Amino acid sequence: MTQQSFQDYYPDVFAHCYGCGRLNEHGHQIKSYWEGEESVCHFLPKPYHIAIPGYVYGGLLASLIDCHGTGTAAAACYRAAKEQDENVEPNTRFLTASLHVDYLKPTPLGVELEVRGKVKELKGRKVVIEERIVANGVITVRGEVVAVQVPESMVDDLVRRK
Amino acid sequence: MTQQSFQDYYPDVFAHCYGCGRLNEHGHQIKSYWEGEESVCHFLPKPYHIAIPGYVYGGLLASLIDCHGTGTAAAACYRAAKEQDENVEPNTRFLTASLHVDYLKPTPLGVELEVRGKVKELKGRKVVIEERIVANGVITVRGEVVAVQVPESMVDDLVRRK
Repeated sequence: MTQQSFQDYYPDVFAHCYGCGRLNEHGHQIKSYWEGEESVCHFLPKPYHIAIPGYVYGGLLASLIDCHGTGTAAAACYRAAKEQDENVEPNTRFLTASLHVDYLKPTPLGVELEVRGKVKELKGRKVVIEERIVANGVITVRGEVVAVQVPESMVDDLVRRK
Repeated sequence: MTQQSFQDYYPDVFAHCYGCGRLNEHGHQIKSYWEGEESVCHFLPKPYHIAIPGYVYGGLLASLIDCHGTGTAAAACYRAAKEQDENVEPNTRFLTASLHVDYLKPTPLGVELEVRGKVKELKGRKVVIEERIVANGVITVRGEVVAVQVPESMVDDLVRRK
């Protein structure tokens, strides 16, 4: 069975994001999944996603933390809602309110990175996700995303504009 | 007189960064300049640098904060060193130790963004830069970069590998 990623559930109107939108042909199109209580995303940076020779660009690493974080927030929110109502739709979408990234050591270029996240706090429309990026078994980056659910007014506005 | 940007002074070996390297043809190639005590960078996101329709991707905004921050750190360090020695070379390069971004409101797509930075702390090899991103005269993002000067050992290693 092929497991669908968190991002595969985003409604089309929310699937254009440069980091995680399946409809953005220029973007990273990251895919995140549950693995027990943690979420995981694998990503192989392109050779030009370089900071200094041999190492991955920090802005890309921040982007991975960002989009894997909002994806995990949406999935966690859906999972919690499903416990209350089996028929709830997985169509929530979160935006980033704040992003923090600590670059513990340079991240090597040329290896598949593993981004792992877990829910630190889930309270109403706000979800906090703790993350780390692992390269060759070594944690090179730690990050935290504060994600907030897209307000209904914005959803309505976007759907109307479509 | 055409003013050179901070990034124009990076030695070739440090000019491949996806965010700010003049030698990375796939990258953003941002350019930062002093404007009095503040540094400034103008950047027009591409139409595909989208988060949700109409708004700029947060990972790109984080990248602008990141690279404008390390650029400002290098320029501030050079400026301070020049006060001690008029003949000092502007060849320092900083990497990001940590990055914090607060998304105050959605940043509109389709307008030139202004990234402004100022030095909050400059102490030895560590420089802290406070930043904001302005779109249509409105501050949409605030950020902070803790930048550290690239260690000599890493510089030597990179130059040897070249």
